[in-house]
Amino acid sequence: MKLEFFYDIASPYTYLASTRVDAVGASLGLPVVWRPFLLGAVFKATGNTMPAAVPAKGTWMLADLDRWARLYGVPFRMPSDFPQATLGVQRLLTATGLAHGHDAQRRLASELFAAVWGRGQSAADLVVSQNALRAAELPQELLVAAGEEAAKVELRTTTDEAVARGAFGAPAIFVGDALFFGNDRFELIAHEVARVRAEEAR
Amino acid sequence: MKLEFFYDIASPYTYLASTRVDAVGASLGLPVVWRPFLLGAVFKATGNTMPAAVPAKGTWMLADLDRWARLYGVPFRMPSDFPQATLGVQRLLTATGLAHGHDAQRRLASELFAAVWGRGQSAADLVVSQNALRAAELPQELLVAAGEEAAKVELRTTTDEAVARGAFGAPAIFVGDALFFGNDRFELIAHEVARVRAEEAR
Repeated sequence: MKLEFFYDIASPYTYLASTRVDAVGASLGLPVVWRPFLLGAVFKATGNTMPAAVPAKGTWMLADLDRWARLYGVPFRMPSDFPQATLGVQRLLTATGLAHGHDAQRRLASELFAAVWGRGQSAADLVVSQNALRAAELPQELLVAAGEEAAKVELRTTTDEAVARGAFGAPAIFVGDALFFGNDRFELIAHEVARVRAEEAR
Repeated sequence: MKLEFFYDIASPYTYLASTRVDAVGASLGLPVVWRPFLLGAVFKATGNTMPAAVPAKGTWMLADLDRWARLYGVPFRMPSDFPQATLGVQRLLTATGLAHGHDAQRRLASELFAAVWGRGQSAADLVVSQNALRAAELPQELLVAAGEEAAKVELRTTTDEAVARGAFGAPAIFVGDALFFGNDRFELIAHEVARVRAEEAR
């Protein structure tokens, strides 16, 4: 058993989840696999829209995000450009995973989440990617690899897989076939893991 | 300070919240005011749609609701007619509040939530309303009052108020001006109440 964490830097609730998911996995004794996918393509494929498309929901969301950030004790700052354009960084993360493995990809993702949602920077900004690579101690050449076919294809494949398994938004966290949507489902995940283990022990 | 719980029998997540909200209020030392409103009118006014309008989200929602019900230890059964038509029961609940006060309205709401989401019955069915009134020890004459102008106007007024204060779905729980949306925000509510009290104590 493992937790698969499908993420896109574009999603503020996924930022929140990203600050917790490793600790949740550790507390459950499960590996956490971070998987970059493209939220915009997921919305398109499923006919979903971002929550802020409803103005009253967008207003509430700002307060809600602030409250979660305070509860988690993590910085939160709304970037001036929202929605965020993340095709570039999601390809960069994918290229990083392909060339340097999971831990490097995960490290870069944390740097990018912190830049965008902790400090309000723009995910589309090349300088933000350059700085995140530096902070994650990864080579700047990944900016080139991010534009190559391998990264594009891999990102599309991962996104298609998530949609085929039922994802419609982010974060999409899977425990086997079971999908958990949102940063607010960790309690349900713990419950599901306990249930599966009880079944296996029978 | 108080918790205002805007609810519509149509909403399964509001059913889940309804099984907890009084205990949460008690644990925080706050009165809970149950306020029937009309979710369909809220959706219309805010341009929102029900989550199940996105098919993949609807599929996930069924699993999600089951998980919450197991976590809470309450029965859950999806009614065969979904979405539920609740104009009649929301007027009935409003009429009950007008004629018999808050506790009677709250009691009837619990009976209706249990019938629809605990046993899968239809909120639009007259027999369901008759049985709920009986179980709540309230007079059947409320079925007449539910069709009268006073109930219609009061339900509209409550719904308009909720929208004006920022509600876009259900459950909408207010602590003063602060809106909390969903059955999954009780932890944030506790945090907000503690924050307000700390501020007042200064």
